[in-house]
Amino acid sequence: MTVIGAGSWGTTFGKILADGGAHVTMWARRAELAHEISEAKRNSRYLPGVNLPRTVNATTDLAAAVDGAEQIYICVPSQTARENLKAVRPLVARTSVPIVSLMKGIERKSGLRMSQVLEEVLECDPARIAVASGPNLALEIAREQPTAAVVASTNEATADAVARRARNSYFRTFVNTDVIGTEFGGVLKNLIAVAIGIVDGVGYGENTKASIITRGLVEMTDFAVAHGAQFETLQGLAGLGDLIATCQSPLSRNNTAGRLLGQGYSFQDVVKQMEQTAEGLASVTPVLQLARTAKVDMPIVEQVKRVLDGTMDPRRIAPHLTTDDEAPKGERTQHGQGRSGGAVRRTIKRAFDQLRHGRGSAGGD
Amino acid sequence: MTVIGAGSWGTTFGKILADGGAHVTMWARRAELAHEISEAKRNSRYLPGVNLPRTVNATTDLAAAVDGAEQIYICVPSQTARENLKAVRPLVARTSVPIVSLMKGIERKSGLRMSQVLEEVLECDPARIAVASGPNLALEIAREQPTAAVVASTNEATADAVARRARNSYFRTFVNTDVIGTEFGGVLKNLIAVAIGIVDGVGYGENTKASIITRGLVEMTDFAVAHGAQFETLQGLAGLGDLIATCQSPLSRNNTAGRLLGQGYSFQDVVKQMEQTAEGLASVTPVLQLARTAKVDMPIVEQVKRVLDGTMDPRRIAPHLTTDDEAPKGERTQHGQGRSGGAVRRTIKRAFDQLRHGRGSAGGD
Repeated sequence: MTVIGAGSWGTTFGKILADGGAHVTMWARRAELAHEISEAKRNSRYLPGVNLPRTVNATTDLAAAVDGAEQIYICVPSQTARENLKAVRPLVARTSVPIVSLMKGIERKSGLRMSQVLEEVLECDPARIAVASGPNLALEIAREQPTAAVVASTNEATADAVARRARNSYFRTFVNTDVIGTEFGGVLKNLIAVAIGIVDGVGYGENTKASIITRGLVEMTDFAVAHGAQFETLQGLAGLGDLIATCQSPLSRNNTAGRLLGQGYSFQDVVKQMEQTAEGLASVTPVLQLARTAKVDMPIVEQVKRVLDGTMDPRRIAPHLTTDDEAPKGERTQHGQGRSGGAVRRTIKRAFDQLRHGRGSAGGD
Repeated sequence: MTVIGAGSWGTTFGKILADGGAHVTMWARRAELAHEISEAKRNSRYLPGVNLPRTVNATTDLAAAVDGAEQIYICVPSQTARENLKAVRPLVARTSVPIVSLMKGIERKSGLRMSQVLEEVLECDPARIAVASGPNLALEIAREQPTAAVVASTNEATADAVARRARNSYFRTFVNTDVIGTEFGGVLKNLIAVAIGIVDGVGYGENTKASIITRGLVEMTDFAVAHGAQFETLQGLAGLGDLIATCQSPLSRNNTAGRLLGQGYSFQDVVKQMEQTAEGLASVTPVLQLARTAKVDMPIVEQVKRVLDGTMDPRRIAPHLTTDDEAPKGERTQHGQGRSGGAVRRTIKRAFDQLRHGRGSAGGD
């Protein structure tokens, strides 16, 4: 097994695979880090205090890392993935093993999901590509706390093969074929996490945050379904699950960025103050562009953008909590009826498919 | 406006109504409390530090409290509601004003929801009855932090009339006609909150909790839909929203009870240690009875019961995280296929109804 990228999530995934029985070779850019992983079985910068299994080794030699791998996991920063992965193309062209994206993000200039970037850059059969996602805070998994995740591939056999290796006693993996929904869940939750950070910064409590998460999931679902995802994926671990874990992670960059904005710092101040850009901030513009093209309404994300632009008071961040309209409304109809028509129709189709295939017919009524 | 019951939620609701412009009369059992509310505009036991509006008064005289009320809100402990409300029957028989349940729970001996108990005890037209629910931690609302709630009545006009009065600048109210879903959301989230408390007690983190909330919502939805609720209600503020807020409230009785269980205390110890029974503990048995009758699978709630009974190690609380089965599975099919068939079929029906009524047809695909 090969993991390309030795940040906190890549290294944690190396440990997951090794604890599942595999021999793992990590690729690290810096020689000192590769050396520390191989010799000390530590990654003290990204996973302080965590011991790595003896079967995890690292190298700076990409060809050596990939050579003979049963599966290749990729975990490099999303905005530089295209550049970084060019060197991988000739190496994977010689093999037909699964390639698994551990990355969450949208490439800003192209608006592409990470699996689409892999497909383009590696020029490989999409059936080889899988993505892993879910409520997966790296440090908790590195500490072996029980966690569930989703592996998605358009090819069921690929998802199955990856799930059988990427699991162990503390990491359980489910499979699906909805790559689009699984990836968009991991992208869109970052935007809602920024909104939650803003609420923290303003000083509001759990009621406000719970209602933003609830409405935020509707926005995520509408967006993803309009782009071909399945409704159920967003209601599952890769959607709701990841959203909740991310929003409960007060040390995440998205939450920190939001909190600073909520406290009244400007976008420029926040960028200056933070070492790395929060993925949520990077995704706002490409996601809203895609949303407008698909005619999907995303009032919370729109308001995050207005806070970023400095054109809205962060205290007004929850659009469903403020209105000038006096007439009581249903939850789903407040922003204009019919905005989730795509979701509704696909849900029907999906539900019918389930019934037709003999599933979902023994239930409780 | 009348609020019967002057605990923390009843008193908070009195403040909500008063801040929305109403004159409010609270009924309190104890004369000292009634006096403190009327004279000092405080309820120091249940809402320490919160100032009540001048237009909130209280009395121990039930007839005086109800006399001339435009709407009657009821907020007494769920397990003693039947007994407590007998005296209200002759008073409300003379009027036709809306009666609103602020109570969350199932009557243990009958298995009835609170609106059903009201219907039986007050012998009144169900069209007069409404329920209010949502992510509504009382103290946050009393501090005027922005909050959203749902008012449900089988009669749209009743829900509308209540929603128009039960709102103000920090409390936004949505309406629906799904009383069953709205009430079951408020009951079932307590059971999942106990499970989250157990996880806290064991020492697991946000990944585990996020996956329990995600799977817990599926159990809640399957149960409620099998009893006639609408799928969407459970995905909204009264389901997911309330679930998240409750699970994030570390001071709640449900969380405390779970945490003690997770630390290894027995059920008897927990009951002894806590002043009041946690609603979540009281509901486990009646909910599981209803679930078995309706053939709904609730693995997380079943495991909470086994922890309560002392027959399971709390460290094994998340059933979706443990399995002896080696084959990768989809998220929805792990506990046997087809258990949410009722939900699926009703979702189809509901979605078609929406399309037929011209809603949900302008969406994004």
